[in-house]
Amino acid sequence: MVSALARLKGFEKLTSIDEAFSTLLKKLKPEKLTSERIPTHVALEHVTAENVTAEKDLPPYDRSAVDGYAVRAQDTFEASQFSPKILRLTENEVRENEARQIWTGDPLPKGADAVVMLEYTKRIQGKIEVGIAVTPGGNVSKRGEDVQRGEIAIKAGTRLKPHHVGLLAALGVTHVNVVKKPKVAILSTGNELVELGRKAKPNQIVDSNKLIISSMCHELGAEPLDLGIAKDDLHEISTKIHEGLQWADVVITTGGTSVGYSDLVPAAVNQIGTPGVIVHGIAMRPGMPTALAVLQGKPVFVLSGNPVAAMIGFEVFARPLILKLLGVESEPRPALKAKLTQKVASALGRRVFLRVTVFERDGEFFAEPLRIKGAGVISTMTKANGYVIIPENREGLEEGEFIIVHLFDKIEGT
Amino acid sequence: MVSALARLKGFEKLTSIDEAFSTLLKKLKPEKLTSERIPTHVALEHVTAENVTAEKDLPPYDRSAVDGYAVRAQDTFEASQFSPKILRLTENEVRENEARQIWTGDPLPKGADAVVMLEYTKRIQGKIEVGIAVTPGGNVSKRGEDVQRGEIAIKAGTRLKPHHVGLLAALGVTHVNVVKKPKVAILSTGNELVELGRKAKPNQIVDSNKLIISSMCHELGAEPLDLGIAKDDLHEISTKIHEGLQWADVVITTGGTSVGYSDLVPAAVNQIGTPGVIVHGIAMRPGMPTALAVLQGKPVFVLSGNPVAAMIGFEVFARPLILKLLGVESEPRPALKAKLTQKVASALGRRVFLRVTVFERDGEFFAEPLRIKGAGVISTMTKANGYVIIPENREGLEEGEFIIVHLFDKIEGT
Repeated sequence: MVSALARLKGFEKLTSIDEAFSTLLKKLKPEKLTSERIPTHVALEHVTAENVTAEKDLPPYDRSAVDGYAVRAQDTFEASQFSPKILRLTENEVRENEARQIWTGDPLPKGADAVVMLEYTKRIQGKIEVGIAVTPGGNVSKRGEDVQRGEIAIKAGTRLKPHHVGLLAALGVTHVNVVKKPKVAILSTGNELVELGRKAKPNQIVDSNKLIISSMCHELGAEPLDLGIAKDDLHEISTKIHEGLQWADVVITTGGTSVGYSDLVPAAVNQIGTPGVIVHGIAMRPGMPTALAVLQGKPVFVLSGNPVAAMIGFEVFARPLILKLLGVESEPRPALKAKLTQKVASALGRRVFLRVTVFERDGEFFAEPLRIKGAGVISTMTKANGYVIIPENREGLEEGEFIIVHLFDKIEGT
Repeated sequence: MVSALARLKGFEKLTSIDEAFSTLLKKLKPEKLTSERIPTHVALEHVTAENVTAEKDLPPYDRSAVDGYAVRAQDTFEASQFSPKILRLTENEVRENEARQIWTGDPLPKGADAVVMLEYTKRIQGKIEVGIAVTPGGNVSKRGEDVQRGEIAIKAGTRLKPHHVGLLAALGVTHVNVVKKPKVAILSTGNELVELGRKAKPNQIVDSNKLIISSMCHELGAEPLDLGIAKDDLHEISTKIHEGLQWADVVITTGGTSVGYSDLVPAAVNQIGTPGVIVHGIAMRPGMPTALAVLQGKPVFVLSGNPVAAMIGFEVFARPLILKLLGVESEPRPALKAKLTQKVASALGRRVFLRVTVFERDGEFFAEPLRIKGAGVISTMTKANGYVIIPENREGLEEGEFIIVHLFDKIEGT
């Protein structure tokens, strides 16, 4: 059924997403990650290019975990609520039957090996009553108990979040080696397109795909380059793609992928060099006419001109490849289990990406499928906040079924 | 019990998080959002300051949703697989018993009111056989069916994601009014602290809180200002806070909040003006010694010096306030339901923030509590990817209980 349909559409066969992606990976020139050294205070969201090893212990000294009195634990062994032990206060080294006031985070004074919490003490003129026994090490954060010198504090391939940046600072790391942002050249094709800011004639539409794809690149930490719009012209398209290959690590085009009069982008790619297009026609919906190509050892993603299909094509193929170029093993979108509010039909033999709106009600998550009128309908993306992947072997999903939703926007509370 | 402990710690009483936040809101000078007009292509992650109304229909014309032939639907009414209808091909207006080839997205030619999919046609020399009946409007995306002229395309208070930016472009919106980034002045206090890049003496630690808080501000779309480090000195602290108030919308301090010899920040705040500190001592863990203050009608968040407590304090109080300044109603972190892998104890009467590691196994999500040795242990944040809120009325959570986890980092697959 699928292959008959594919033939009618002009495709010899449809390739599964997984096979297509692994074919692409095999044809790419394995690129060594290039790194750059940047100050820690601008490293947020960058990806570490190598392990960061702690050059000091954290905490750097034994310190109090509470507000209270530093003591020698053995001096408290007999203390209890009803028979408190009396200790002399000191401002110096803690000796036998002495205590020294201490606040959370303060270094443990010499002689002391434990801290009695403020709550279990009573102060009476230069002395304190201790109403509890503490064991050696009690209420003390030992030097190195958080991070030990020589330990790997942050692994290579880590996307730096606020807490990672904080850990780097605590370790005294002023600069960090991060992976250089991959460069992505983006081209829109189509006679009907005009650039945002130009006046659209009645039969023209404003190009939105370049802005969508470049925004998705920004989100990943890649650097987009705008190759502009190419008319449906073989020479113009191949010239622009060639230009993109000069400096970018990845080229992405949208439009002109149908097998029809406008099957120009795959042809333009093949004019430039080998191997050129390696897969054309994917068993997915939306995005069937997607093509994957390799030129100069670099990936070229030839995506559909429909905005939603282009976004899904980016999500499925370009996103994991760009993450690979960043050295990130995987970075799944936030996912959750939700209950499907109504039955949906799918297409056997294709992986279907169903846009849904997830909402929370009484602590339960529900996913409502959007009524979809076509892959060109961009408002379905602004109304949805996630998508569900319906696998190739399912004809549809049942109402009430628990499904995993991948989120690309926030969930509205109720 | 709680209030007895609070008294021992020097707090008159502990205030619940909800009460503390609503007290703060009441004391703030209601600020009108200030907006700025920026180009759409740099608007990603900004927040819209007003509704964006569509000034055109999307799609801007009736267009084909498929590859095929534009026809007059009535000419196909008798067509079937076994008795196909023959139509003449045309390159112009579609008249009775005519068809014109069309590709996905093309404008519907004059005279046509439906499209027959390529799959149901057969081309024979200047004519086609149509093997299916289509109804008027069949396979056509009607003008305005995605977005109608005059409709609100994007609401005020929307954080712009790639699909929103794409929709703006499709609508021809070149500039958009977004809320100006709130400015947040950040101060660390403590004699033991040194700036990152300075050599720490044996009893000193490198300040990490400023970098953590400023990173969290960046993530929210706020603009951090570094007020540096103040010694535990009343005058120094109040001078710096005063400086921050001159230009920032929010001031955040960390450290010096314990009720002890170092209870200096609340005192410094109260020196500057009224109402000053309005809440000190919150029924939460970590972060009990947090204080909330108002000066010059602006919020001042006096957070704990422990990095983890500072992060939680920011999350609970500063984050929702900054979102309010941005005009965002709510922006919950991604949340999911997970099964707790082991029993945990809590503190009755306090809201406890439990750090957990969420992982997926066979399509199920599990949350593993981190063994926590204190709020100062920053590595617990880099090892966790989410937190669970244990409400005030629970003494703990049971093993196997389903709990809602708020994610601040990605989930590792298995």
